[in-house]
Amino acid sequence: MFDPEKHYSKLGHTFKPSVLNTVVLAAFDLIKQGKKLISMTGGSYDVPSMPVEEVKRIFAEAPREAWSDMLQYGSTTGMSSLKNELAKFMGEAGIETDPKSEIIVTTGSQEAIDLATRVFIDPKDVIYIGKPTYLQALSAFKTVNPEFREVELDTDGMNTDLMEKDMKQLKSEGKSPKMLYIIPSFQNPTSTVLSMERRKHALELAEEYDFIIFEDNPYGYISFSGPMPKPMAAMDKSGRVMYTSTFSKIVSPGMRLGWLQGHKDFVFKMSEAKGRISISNDGLAQYVGAEMLRRGDVAKQIPKITNVYRKKRDVMLETMATTFPKEAKWNAPRGGLFLWVEMPELVNTTELLGECVKRGAAYIPGSNFFAGDVHNCIRLNYSLPSEEDIVDGIQILGKLLTEQV
Amino acid sequence: MFDPEKHYSKLGHTFKPSVLNTVVLAAFDLIKQGKKLISMTGGSYDVPSMPVEEVKRIFAEAPREAWSDMLQYGSTTGMSSLKNELAKFMGEAGIETDPKSEIIVTTGSQEAIDLATRVFIDPKDVIYIGKPTYLQALSAFKTVNPEFREVELDTDGMNTDLMEKDMKQLKSEGKSPKMLYIIPSFQNPTSTVLSMERRKHALELAEEYDFIIFEDNPYGYISFSGPMPKPMAAMDKSGRVMYTSTFSKIVSPGMRLGWLQGHKDFVFKMSEAKGRISISNDGLAQYVGAEMLRRGDVAKQIPKITNVYRKKRDVMLETMATTFPKEAKWNAPRGGLFLWVEMPELVNTTELLGECVKRGAAYIPGSNFFAGDVHNCIRLNYSLPSEEDIVDGIQILGKLLTEQV
Repeated sequence: MFDPEKHYSKLGHTFKPSVLNTVVLAAFDLIKQGKKLISMTGGSYDVPSMPVEEVKRIFAEAPREAWSDMLQYGSTTGMSSLKNELAKFMGEAGIETDPKSEIIVTTGSQEAIDLATRVFIDPKDVIYIGKPTYLQALSAFKTVNPEFREVELDTDGMNTDLMEKDMKQLKSEGKSPKMLYIIPSFQNPTSTVLSMERRKHALELAEEYDFIIFEDNPYGYISFSGPMPKPMAAMDKSGRVMYTSTFSKIVSPGMRLGWLQGHKDFVFKMSEAKGRISISNDGLAQYVGAEMLRRGDVAKQIPKITNVYRKKRDVMLETMATTFPKEAKWNAPRGGLFLWVEMPELVNTTELLGECVKRGAAYIPGSNFFAGDVHNCIRLNYSLPSEEDIVDGIQILGKLLTEQV
Repeated sequence: MFDPEKHYSKLGHTFKPSVLNTVVLAAFDLIKQGKKLISMTGGSYDVPSMPVEEVKRIFAEAPREAWSDMLQYGSTTGMSSLKNELAKFMGEAGIETDPKSEIIVTTGSQEAIDLATRVFIDPKDVIYIGKPTYLQALSAFKTVNPEFREVELDTDGMNTDLMEKDMKQLKSEGKSPKMLYIIPSFQNPTSTVLSMERRKHALELAEEYDFIIFEDNPYGYISFSGPMPKPMAAMDKSGRVMYTSTFSKIVSPGMRLGWLQGHKDFVFKMSEAKGRISISNDGLAQYVGAEMLRRGDVAKQIPKITNVYRKKRDVMLETMATTFPKEAKWNAPRGGLFLWVEMPELVNTTELLGECVKRGAAYIPGSNFFAGDVHNCIRLNYSLPSEEDIVDGIQILGKLLTEQV
């Protein structure tokens, strides 16, 4: 008798149903099947704002040579035309880079995180992360069993003074930090912005303790007031910051188009890793991405989608103000796609999700964003649901939370 | 001073310039830059045969709901419409499967190999492979440091009697096989076909020694005489065969569209692994793939491209017959994209490549297809170069080889 359980690797055995599949994409599937469920879970794109006409036009106008490029094997680091456009795009944010050697196109930012995990992280290596931080980064890092050191966040992002203190402690234990994983602008899940002082402080600490920084910037472009905060990669002088961003929040998540910018030696190692995983990104999406940047479609799409999300954030905040119990605490994000709610410690939002879904609304339990056990938080997304659904969904959740306190 | 070398993981340190980047894609880049170089390296697609009009038509005709699907996050296992079409497509080859639970869409077959590596293979696990076998499978497996056991091939593919003998030996050492990696139909690089008797024998051995089989079938559809040989997955009764195939050889490599079919528990584990790597495949390529299958475009494309490759194979064989030294041995493939050449042992084709490229032609040194050291073989590809270039390229190589013996 064949028993599948007997055949997994140690890593394979650790793979359990994840929140991505059981909550985020499951909610999506239920909605597509016609069930009335208001999903405030993943950072999905506002459907009516998708740049459908722009993409259609690009395919309709593509010359024969472009099709030969799209449909053939391509470079592991990505299409030259796309890398050139990405270099210009990052240049506008202050990041000077050589598209030939310092950029690798990735399958969303997720692949950039996976490649960094493989190329840099050994078991027991120390990774500094926010408390809380992006759940799928935690999942990727966990595949190699690192040691996580969590750093508390406040309204100015990760507290780098606490981080410095912990690094001193770590040094006294004879260990050293390997990497800082950080989302400085509109952090996931808290939407906080790391202050300029702290950005500088983190870079100084990287020099002092000789670690590398993985800067994840999917949300920086969705800024509700003022320009995108300056990326740390634009302030790095040594080459120890790897910078990743993606089309997922500004253009389309389905295109799975992300990129990593960094030291040419790092990019080379990552391209060798990627050759073993997927050979290259899909050519159709790369061509569309390059053309949307070249034609200015991305430049137009960013303010368009930012306006939509600002309005949705306002609707969510207004409804929370009137329906959430006074014991709940939350922030007013200046950008990004998420609201972070803290309930009193006795409220277990992981256990509460099932009841919430029964009543017609879904969120992501905060526990997924911590390396340790914290169960009283909730991440809410306002980019996917319509304004009407935000009102209904928050009312359902507000009533449920009020019953708990 | 920042030193990149100090920051890599153990795995990261192992990544050296690979033949994929230094030969296959490098040759491609040189050609695109206008250098006259005849590439008989990778298994790239015949450019004039690309299904450009079909893809353009599908995008032009896609309804609004389809665009919402393409541009949004999708299921980690793939678009439902694509999985349904893939189930039908495999059904025609005798593989009965449930598209909901037994298929995962992957970034080419390469990602399927990577996912299997993660989910199943621990360091020192024993993997049986052909001698020679697909170089990028070796590269993927090597990331977890398995023990390779190589099995000689003859005109009927991997010699399963030798494999059985080795497995007995292995058992006497107190070890057991973990996985058989096999390309039964038009094997890469030898283009041999595993006989039906040997397919059955390998399946029997899997039962007896309780190992899993990874069946890689990118080339089966490119059959020059008669239908595709029956896949082993169609003969498997226990669920221990994982089957992977891809659009790369029959439709387009640039779409990066592959899939894996297997036991639902295996597919679940792989979807959890993929969630940590890339979340999902690109939606544009998935939609096009589903539509090309549904409309019969794939069914039309397969005989079309097979005819092109049969003719190119003939041209290559004819030119070899008149220009290669008598000491060279090669086969006449009944399908697939490759010719395998064996030279006397004193000829080192790895060292010879540089001179060949100088003279205007490139191949892949056979050494890349062995776990051990074998340097007298050459893999030639006839799918990419035109018939004229095949004649010129083989003449260049034939002259060079004649000088060596």
